Amino acid sequence: MNPAAEPAQLKDIVAHAKEYGFVFQSSEIYDGLAAVYDYGPNGVELKNNLKRLWWDAMTQLHGNVVGLDAAIFMDPRTWEASGHVAGFNDPMIDNLDSKKRYRADVLLEEKAAEYEKAGDPARGAALTAEMGRLLTENDLAGVRQLIIDEDIKCAVSGTGKWTEVRQFNLMFSTQGSAVDGDAPPVYLRPETAQGIFVNFLNVQKSARMKVPFGIAQIGKAFRNEIVARQFIFRMREFEQMEMQFFVRPGTEGEWYDTWKAARRRFHEAIGLPAAKLRFHDHDKLAHYAKAAVDIEFEFPFGFKEIEGIHSRSDFDLTQHQNLSRKKQQYFDADIDPATGKAYGNYVPFVVETSVGADRLFLATLCNAYQEETITEGEGEAQQTKTRTFLKLHPALAPVKAAIFPLVRKDGMPEKAQEIFDALKYDFRLVLEERDAIGKRYTRQDLIGTPFCIVVDGQTLEDNTVTVRHRDSREQTRMAISELRQYIGEAVSPRRIFEQLA
Amino acid sequence: MNPAAEPAQLKDIVAHAKEYGFVFQSSEIYDGLAAVYDYGPNGVELKNNLKRLWWDAMTQLHGNVVGLDAAIFMDPRTWEASGHVAGFNDPMIDNLDSKKRYRADVLLEEKAAEYEKAGDPARGAALTAEMGRLLTENDLAGVRQLIIDEDIKCAVSGTGKWTEVRQFNLMFSTQGSAVDGDAPPVYLRPETAQGIFVNFLNVQKSARMKVPFGIAQIGKAFRNEIVARQFIFRMREFEQMEMQFFVRPGTEGEWYDTWKAARRRFHEAIGLPAAKLRFHDHDKLAHYAKAAVDIEFEFPFGFKEIEGIHSRSDFDLTQHQNLSRKKQQYFDADIDPATGKAYGNYVPFVVETSVGADRLFLATLCNAYQEETITEGEGEAQQTKTRTFLKLHPALAPVKAAIFPLVRKDGMPEKAQEIFDALKYDFRLVLEERDAIGKRYTRQDLIGTPFCIVVDGQTLEDNTVTVRHRDSREQTRMAISELRQYIGEAVSPRRIFEQLA
Repeated sequence: MNPAAEPAQLKDIVAHAKEYGFVFQSSEIYDGLAAVYDYGPNGVELKNNLKRLWWDAMTQLHGNVVGLDAAIFMDPRTWEASGHVAGFNDPMIDNLDSKKRYRADVLLEEKAAEYEKAGDPARGAALTAEMGRLLTENDLAGVRQLIIDEDIKCAVSGTGKWTEVRQFNLMFSTQGSAVDGDAPPVYLRPETAQGIFVNFLNVQKSARMKVPFGIAQIGKAFRNEIVARQFIFRMREFEQMEMQFFVRPGTEGEWYDTWKAARRRFHEAIGLPAAKLRFHDHDKLAHYAKAAVDIEFEFPFGFKEIEGIHSRSDFDLTQHQNLSRKKQQYFDADIDPATGKAYGNYVPFVVETSVGADRLFLATLCNAYQEETITEGEGEAQQTKTRTFLKLHPALAPVKAAIFPLVRKDGMPEKAQEIFDALKYDFRLVLEERDAIGKRYTRQDLIGTPFCIVVDGQTLEDNTVTVRHRDSREQTRMAISELRQYIGEAVSPRRIFEQLA
Repeated sequence: MNPAAEPAQLKDIVAHAKEYGFVFQSSEIYDGLAAVYDYGPNGVELKNNLKRLWWDAMTQLHGNVVGLDAAIFMDPRTWEASGHVAGFNDPMIDNLDSKKRYRADVLLEEKAAEYEKAGDPARGAALTAEMGRLLTENDLAGVRQLIIDEDIKCAVSGTGKWTEVRQFNLMFSTQGSAVDGDAPPVYLRPETAQGIFVNFLNVQKSARMKVPFGIAQIGKAFRNEIVARQFIFRMREFEQMEMQFFVRPGTEGEWYDTWKAARRRFHEAIGLPAAKLRFHDHDKLAHYAKAAVDIEFEFPFGFKEIEGIHSRSDFDLTQHQNLSRKKQQYFDADIDPATGKAYGNYVPFVVETSVGADRLFLATLCNAYQEETITEGEGEAQQTKTRTFLKLHPALAPVKAAIFPLVRKDGMPEKAQEIFDALKYDFRLVLEERDAIGKRYTRQDLIGTPFCIVVDGQTLEDNTVTVRHRDSREQTRMAISELRQYIGEAVSPRRIFEQLA
């Protein structure tokens, strides 16, 4: 990238994502559904490539990690056991005049930020601390009083007339059954992890897994977010890639460290630069947690979480064991050197790695979005212009190669079609005859296609083509018979996988 | 398969699916959620392989078919336009004594079947016809009267005291917004097709598609089924693989025929035998439909639909155009030979191909499930036994090869690990040291692994292994260095793709 170029702003990336078929606002013809997005033709390929890399890195490279695909619908008791029914809430307050609803904690955080901006960070910090104390004690009347004491006004009505603060559960629910009107509502899962926990023994037994082992899952989850924003970063419907790793109690610390390092290596291997990644330890741990860290990526709107690694103790399995009255134990036949006997029965501890698939997609897209100043032509015709392209890892690119007949005659289109048909079993290709060749290159740059193959006059004589490279814009001449191996090596995930070993 | 063996029953397959990690009842530790299932470690791989084959066959082999991944949540007006809010209903009736709820049409169909069994098919047919007439006219009081006239009793209470018949919408709904209490409910999509239709122009423009072209999508859909049954055949949460093909009006007939043939070829190419597949034309067409056919597979419970091909006219796009007031037109610059002018603007017609991913999974599993009688040993030790194995196409098998050290000593485990590490970038493998070798073969047969690689004494001398073949149980000796290519050719989807051309 040209270092002089301005960093890409989120709005440029949102516009690019729509224009070139990566991400559309959901139900756009009906003016859009808030905080829900659809993946377009190039977006779905990029996302599938990311999901597949993660899946294979987890389940194919590790002999002791297997997959699962649990349904979105689960027995409602799952969410009692997990604590989501009682505790997965946001504190909400409504303005009586505008009827507008706010997250109470966000109102107070914004006020604290104001103090900081105004040069009184101590007052801001004190406010944040007081809010934290009230929320921890679930003192909602206290939170409301704090909002009134701080003289916080509604942005719409301008008044400070507020309702009580109420806890608002973030889980979506739907009717439980068509047949039984009294059936309890079924929730749309707010996380995929619980589908793994309730299947712990089914998986362990059917796949004959020995602790330590992991269960990986990719799937949709849903949260009725009050503050949904930053494009696909925080959506009401989103996708998670989670792996829960079950370990012998006492070994969770070393596994936490192992997975923390492994997961960071993954993000670097798929092309996110080390300088744009950082670890962020959680300031406050859940009562059951032993340790928790986020891997953050530097988005245009700052460093934000793309993955969490959490040492969750035996909390989830024990909760399900208690509520379901079904033992969630593993018999460990290995010999404990301290006692000379088998470790025996225990509820395993869990180390969780949880990636937001949409966030990883956005990080990848933001990182790939490049604007460089290039010089074209010579002498008086020389001019500089800005070239935009997506510098995606070839294994991630939606289209691996575009095939262009130089002109639409002299048998070139037929030859291009022949190459397409010869390579289509191996790679996702585009065949494009329309527009001038430069315009065709530009279009492939904009969707991140690593190679453009041009069929020209010489091709018809000697079966060679030019291959134009996205990043360098250099062209090399190559025999058609060499294309499969050349492209195959470049787009193979193998080089990524080897970096994970 | 041994022709003398009994055909596999559904209950055997359900038990097998659970025991060997293909399909688990959802939330089983909480006694299961009705008509919802989870895919286990082998199930998720088989399902992913099926999904990927369909996806690549659609979007990679056809230059004019691109993908999409629309959200489950859509603007509620989508379902007004599609007709689902008004018309996606089942007629329900409750017994007043037992409070049990039934589908009124199913009660009558069962009665008609009784007549048929009792040797009076004419009376059964008359009843079915009368019911059809009443439902078409939406005469729900008439349907209730028919149930009373036919003296149909509740299976639980044994009485004939019935409520009115009411139309019950099959769409699940959830709260629309956390912020606005007045927001209309959001439905969980009952089909994926509408996500394609509302994105028609976004896709056409961003991917610069020319009619005819298709949009392919895989995703979850939800229906509050009253009669959910037959394992994963009819679930409340299920997955569709749909491709909507947009064509110039007047050409839909030939495209319908083309896709009808192409889709049947697909099912045969992945291993479903021609004798177990048939076309079933719809008896009654929706008012907007030009033609509709199901591809049916012969399950243990009879021939049932696994895919539908429908010529849908311009119904969906026109409905969305009318409700959204956004033109859903395509400008066709091609020259109409009849007029010598461009075809110009029109709303394209649609030919839909819609596969139930879970049904295809079940068809594949039922078809692969084999029981054969085999003879082992010689002379007096000779005995016959039944061997169960999954005869899956190698491209579909969850595990491509299992690697076994013959014994757990003499460096064989280390050699096996070496082979695992050399091949793990290319294939999903299992390395298993436990149990006798015969038992290990059996286990891989039961999950459909095409190859078992055994490291023995000779391996340590000359770097050869035995490769045991699942279907023939034959063993061949092979150099380790040949394994990648040998397995690679067998498990590649290429041979499947070539049959589709």
